[in-house]
Parts: sequence; structure tokens; C-alpha cells
Amino acid sequence: MKEIKGNVTSPKGFKAYGDSTGLKKNGNKDMAIIVSDSLCTASGCFTTNVVKAAPVLWDMDMVKNPVKAIVANSGNANACTGQQGLDDARATAEKLAGLTGVKAENILVCSTGVIGVNLPMDTILKGVDKVFKGIDYSFDAGVAASEAIMTTDTHNKTVAVEIEIGGKTVTIGGMAKGSGMINPNMATMLCFITTDCAISKDMLDKALKDCVADSFNMISVDGDMSTNDTVLTIANGLAENKVIDSENDDYNKFKEALFYITKGLAIECADDGEGATKLIEAHAMGCKSVEDARKIALSVVSSSLLKAAIFGEDANWGRVLCAMGYSGAEFEPMAVTIEFRSDKGKILLMDNGKPIVFDEDLAALILSEHKIYIDMYLKEGTAEATAWGCDLTYDYVKINGDYRS
Amino acid sequence: MKEIKGNVTSPKGFKAYGDSTGLKKNGNKDMAIIVSDSLCTASGCFTTNVVKAAPVLWDMDMVKNPVKAIVANSGNANACTGQQGLDDARATAEKLAGLTGVKAENILVCSTGVIGVNLPMDTILKGVDKVFKGIDYSFDAGVAASEAIMTTDTHNKTVAVEIEIGGKTVTIGGMAKGSGMINPNMATMLCFITTDCAISKDMLDKALKDCVADSFNMISVDGDMSTNDTVLTIANGLAENKVIDSENDDYNKFKEALFYITKGLAIECADDGEGATKLIEAHAMGCKSVEDARKIALSVVSSSLLKAAIFGEDANWGRVLCAMGYSGAEFEPMAVTIEFRSDKGKILLMDNGKPIVFDEDLAALILSEHKIYIDMYLKEGTAEATAWGCDLTYDYVKINGDYRS
Repeated sequence: MKEIKGNVTSPKGFKAYGDSTGLKKNGNKDMAIIVSDSLCTASGCFTTNVVKAAPVLWDMDMVKNPVKAIVANSGNANACTGQQGLDDARATAEKLAGLTGVKAENILVCSTGVIGVNLPMDTILKGVDKVFKGIDYSFDAGVAASEAIMTTDTHNKTVAVEIEIGGKTVTIGGMAKGSGMINPNMATMLCFITTDCAISKDMLDKALKDCVADSFNMISVDGDMSTNDTVLTIANGLAENKVIDSENDDYNKFKEALFYITKGLAIECADDGEGATKLIEAHAMGCKSVEDARKIALSVVSSSLLKAAIFGEDANWGRVLCAMGYSGAEFEPMAVTIEFRSDKGKILLMDNGKPIVFDEDLAALILSEHKIYIDMYLKEGTAEATAWGCDLTYDYVKINGDYRS
Repeated sequence: MKEIKGNVTSPKGFKAYGDSTGLKKNGNKDMAIIVSDSLCTASGCFTTNVVKAAPVLWDMDMVKNPVKAIVANSGNANACTGQQGLDDARATAEKLAGLTGVKAENILVCSTGVIGVNLPMDTILKGVDKVFKGIDYSFDAGVAASEAIMTTDTHNKTVAVEIEIGGKTVTIGGMAKGSGMINPNMATMLCFITTDCAISKDMLDKALKDCVADSFNMISVDGDMSTNDTVLTIANGLAENKVIDSENDDYNKFKEALFYITKGLAIECADDGEGATKLIEAHAMGCKSVEDARKIALSVVSSSLLKAAIFGEDANWGRVLCAMGYSGAEFEPMAVTIEFRSDKGKILLMDNGKPIVFDEDLAALILSEHKIYIDMYLKEGTAEATAWGCDLTYDYVKINGDYRS
């Protein structure tokens, strides 16, 4: 596997573009379109929130069909928008279907932004025309698409890799937006992955589900689970590899590459959390089950108290043990060992349930780094899991105190 | 039932005091003692965190015994402190037992403050002597006790009521501390309730459990559940009413008064959340079950995004529906009605699933108040529940970014 400079236009036969259509008051890019030369096998993972945005409901249905294109807007989430919202999602799909010569049912639609306001459909429909005119196979066009789905993200997020499958070069490219409202089982998080791999629907579904479980479902920014979270993967088969239709070596190779994409983008989303100044990687080891390990790691990166302490560069490890304790996992607290770590070194804080009087200067030095690792060793079994989050800062409050205006 | 000016010393036969013993660097009061003239029936509700502080483990065991006194320190939580922590909790109980002429098993012990640092036992033991010398039956002594359990609380919290049971005046007094780490199933929250009511252990347990379910378990400050949460009630029977030993009219009268105490103190804890500028009361109605209603109401007051919006006085009701959606309760989003309300008026934001274009000026006026009500009407059934929380502010981050120093 080789990481390449690329994005959603890197795989064969994918065009994209992103531009400003007037949805964002500040004139920033706000609509992205990705089109495949041929119909794709598609797979999706969606928010588990009971309240699902209109485009999520649309995509959950249409991802079963062959997919030609994806259209995504930022600035307005088309969530909590009633029947009108559903009609608007369909109208957007119909518009792009007309331009690409397919049915609305072959188009996926995504939205992110403010909740509870109906889409300005004149702007949307004119926008689809405008952005569609710009689509091409270039690297720059893919970059433009990735920029057009940003909301409070501070930078666009893309990644691409190449692998060899049966002598053919298979490419996978991805883009994502994250920032606030990021939590277990995704959040206001959109991710679009394109590939020219030939793969069956069943195998693509399985690979995506497994990859998302250990990446996008293991990040938290603020504990809020969005109405709009969507990860879509579309595969057009133009790499001409032998179709992957079972869990063979080719499948494993593809899944490893797909995980590289989803993990990389997920960590970028956590790192770019609203107002974040630090990336936290929590690693739970020696757990009874993977489920317990995930609960523990996620609980720690989700704790407001711990996140505020990391912002303050305060080695308040008691908050780690506390968050482990309310994670829902059962374990013996008196057997827990906790270390904080960064590129500046590591420090033991609790040793088999016993608090250690530690060197505050060394702790401060370690916590002065951008990326902070929290290692938790339990004695319940051999399962482990990793979760990623960010610190809680003044800017998070500022950004979310007045988001609509 | 009549609210009186009072606290834990208001019921017959209870002395208390609180003073500075050197646990807090700033010299503030840090130890409280409450002593009953006669042995009490006792009841407790405790944190459900797997990681329980040493005094919690002690009290969970000892609350079965007749109880003579409670000693509580602030400044150090004696949590995550290993075997030494358990020994220290016992030594503290032994010390007060010696002064009050009972066994250690008749003494309850509580701690709140920094996690993961062993108690300075010299200071603690000398402190018990000092504070015990000051105990008396006065109102002021009860105030001093309530001040001595504060951590980041901005003010002490007390309440007292009188009821008539069978011609006898029964008094209940309470004090609490809250602030950060307050979440469903309690948090770094301590509450001590005294009463001269004559009541059986079984009935006291039942009343307290029911009252806590709808009060302390329905508040959230930051989603973190502490290792130390404790609500204790001790009843010495000196009011000489006929012992309440079944769910009769006397029981109902007592429970109503106890709920007045727990609800009042719980709301004060939410209102005085770390950095809070606003109190949020979320009311879920028309739910399928009380459990669903509780989940929905709590999810809304726990949402960082909604809390930050309330701080910014932004009527971002979409975040309310979103938080309802990930609460774990099942419901039809298209049937939900949401209103915001305060003493300045009320405003309809979503009507049966349809977003309402609302008057931003009126919304701003309503949200400029200190207490904000969020009313959610569902169409799943007739159950309802209320939860209380506070906004998320810059000061929350500041307080928790550097708590230990």
C-alpha cells in the first residue's frame, strides 16, 4: 500500500468539483459534486440518531442502487425540516440525475450545517448547474470538492492510497469534514470515499462497516451525535481487477487500504474538532472484550472534565480513571495502570490502582505537546481499542455559543 | 408543608459545624461535622461509577447501621487512592467515633475535591478535633457546615421544611454541594439531609430512592459522573411522631417534604454548575414511558452544543431535537413540538415536526432571562419528566482547565 498525493478524483473515472453557490453568507464554497464515469457499487454508514436529516433518509434507501454521483451542500443540514425537507432532497437528486443521464434513485445527497431551516431550493438547483459545469478529473477539482463540504473545519481533509490487486493498480481516495458534534457512531461528519476497485456490494458493505467501527465510530469531539452523519463509499470497478466477492486475500488488502483512509480522515476530524488545540489518543488495553475496550477509550476522550484538563495541560489522571469508571465496562479499579505520553516522554500516574506521586515538571513538559497519548492497562483480558478526541477550549464555547448568526 | 429558614440543625437533636482545617490551600472552610443526639436510621444513594471513592465504599457498608454522625471534608476526594484511601476513611470514622462515644461503624464519612491524592491524615485528624469542638444546635453552625463542603460552588446550599405528622411537628433540613461533574446518577455532589422524623429503615430507603430519582438523578452539569456522589439522610426520631413503617398517609406526607428538599437542592446544584450563567429546565411530555421521558429530558440538558447555544442566547432548537434523537428513546420526530419559554414569554419553534419561522427578537428577549424552560411535546403516550442543567461557558473551561493548581 502506498499513500499518494490525491483525493476523490484519484481513482480512475471520477470527476469532482466544489464551488460557492450562495448558501453560505460569507461566500465560501458550499456545494460539492462527485460523478463517476460508470455506475458504482455503493455502501453507506449513517447516524444512529432517531432524528435523521432528510438526505440521510434518502441515502439509506438509495445506497442499495447503482450510484452515479454524490451531491453535498454545506451551510444548511436539511435536518428537522419536515416533509418539505424530504421533497427537497429528492428534488436535488432529480436535478443532478437530469444532468448525468440517470434516475434520481442513482444519486446520493448529503447536507451539513444549520439544523431546522428549509433549503433555499432556487439557490440549490442553480448551484447544482454551476458546480456540475466545473467537474473534471483533476487533482485540483478534487481539492475544490473537499473544501466545499467544510463548515467550522479549519482545513479540508483528503487522503488517497494505491494498492496492487492481481497485477492491477487499485486506487482509493477520500475526503471528509468534521469539526463539532462528533461522537461515537459519527457526528456532523461527512466522508466520501471513491475507488476504482471492482468489488461486490456485500463485500463493500462489510469492509466499510468494519473500518468505520474502528475509525469514525471511535472519535468524539463533544458527545453530540448529529442528525446528518454519513460515510459513503462508491466503487466503479474501472481498475479492472478480478471482482472481490469473498473474504479472500484481495479483500483483506482492500480492507486494509480502506481502513487507512477512514482512520486517517477520522483522526483528522478529531484533531480539527471545534476550538481544539490538542489531539488525544486514548488506548485501553487488557480489557475483557473489544466492546469494553471501546467503551473505556471512548468514555475517556468524551469526558468534558478530562478534555478541559488536557487543554490546561494539567495531568489530572484521576479524571481518566473516573471516566473509565462510568463507561459501562466492568473492571477492577485496583488493578488499573495509567500513563500519559507524548513525543516528549511518558509518565506513570497510577500503578496497579495506586496513585503515584509524580514529577509535575515532567508531566507539564509531556502535556505541552500537541498530541497526547493516554495509555490504560487493565487486567481483565487481552482486548484493546483506541479512541481519538480533542481538548475542550474557550473557542469551542465561542464557536457554539453563536453558530447560527 | 412549610419552608422555614433553616438547615441540617433545624430538626430536633442535630448539632453541626464547619471550619477550616488546612486541607484547602486558600484557607477556606474544608470540614463539616453533623452529630445527632441519638442514633439515627440512615439511608444513602451513591454514585454508580465502577470507580468509587474510599468513603463511598465505607458509607455503602455502614449506612446499614445506626448512625451517630457524619464527617465530610472538601479539597480532597480520597478517590483513586488505593488501599491507603480505605484505611484513611476508617481512621477518620474512628476518630469521630471516639469523640462521640460510638464505634467507627456508626460514623459516615464523605470527601470531595481532587482525585488521586492521599488524604493528609495528620491534618484530617486534627481537623476532626477542631471542628467537633465547634458543633452546636444553632442556625449559624448549620450554615458553617454547609459552607465547609463547597468546592467550586459559588455559594452554600441549604433548605429546611416543617410538616405535621399526627399532631407532631416533623422537621427536615438539608445541605448540598455540587458544581462540576454533575450528571445523571449524581456527580461530585454531596447532600446531607437530617430529620427528626420517626421512620423505619425500609421506608426511609424507599422514600430517598424515589426522591433522588426525580431530583439529583435528573440534573447534569457536564456529563461526568463522579466517584464520590453521595446523598445521605439520617433520621433520629426525636419528633416523636408514630413511627412511619408502611406507605400510609404519613409516609406520603414525609416523602413529599423530602422531595421538596432534594428537588430544591438539586436545582440549586444545576443552577450553580461550574461557570454557569443560566439554569435550563427541560420538560419532556407525551412520552411512551417515564424512562423515555427521563432519557429525553436528560439528553437535552446534557448536550454541549445546546448548552453552548443557551450561553450564547441563540434559539438553536435544532440541537434540542438532535439531542432528543440520540437519547436512546424511540419516538416519531415528525410529531414533535418544541417551545422555549422564560419569564419574558414563550415561543413556538417546531410544530408537529415542522420548523417554524420565528421572531428572532422575541426569541432573544426570552433567552436573555436567567432561567430558560424547554418544553417538548411528543405523541407517544402520557409520561413526562423534567431535568435541570446549565449553560456551557468560557468559565467552565477555565475552571476545569487548571483545577488542581
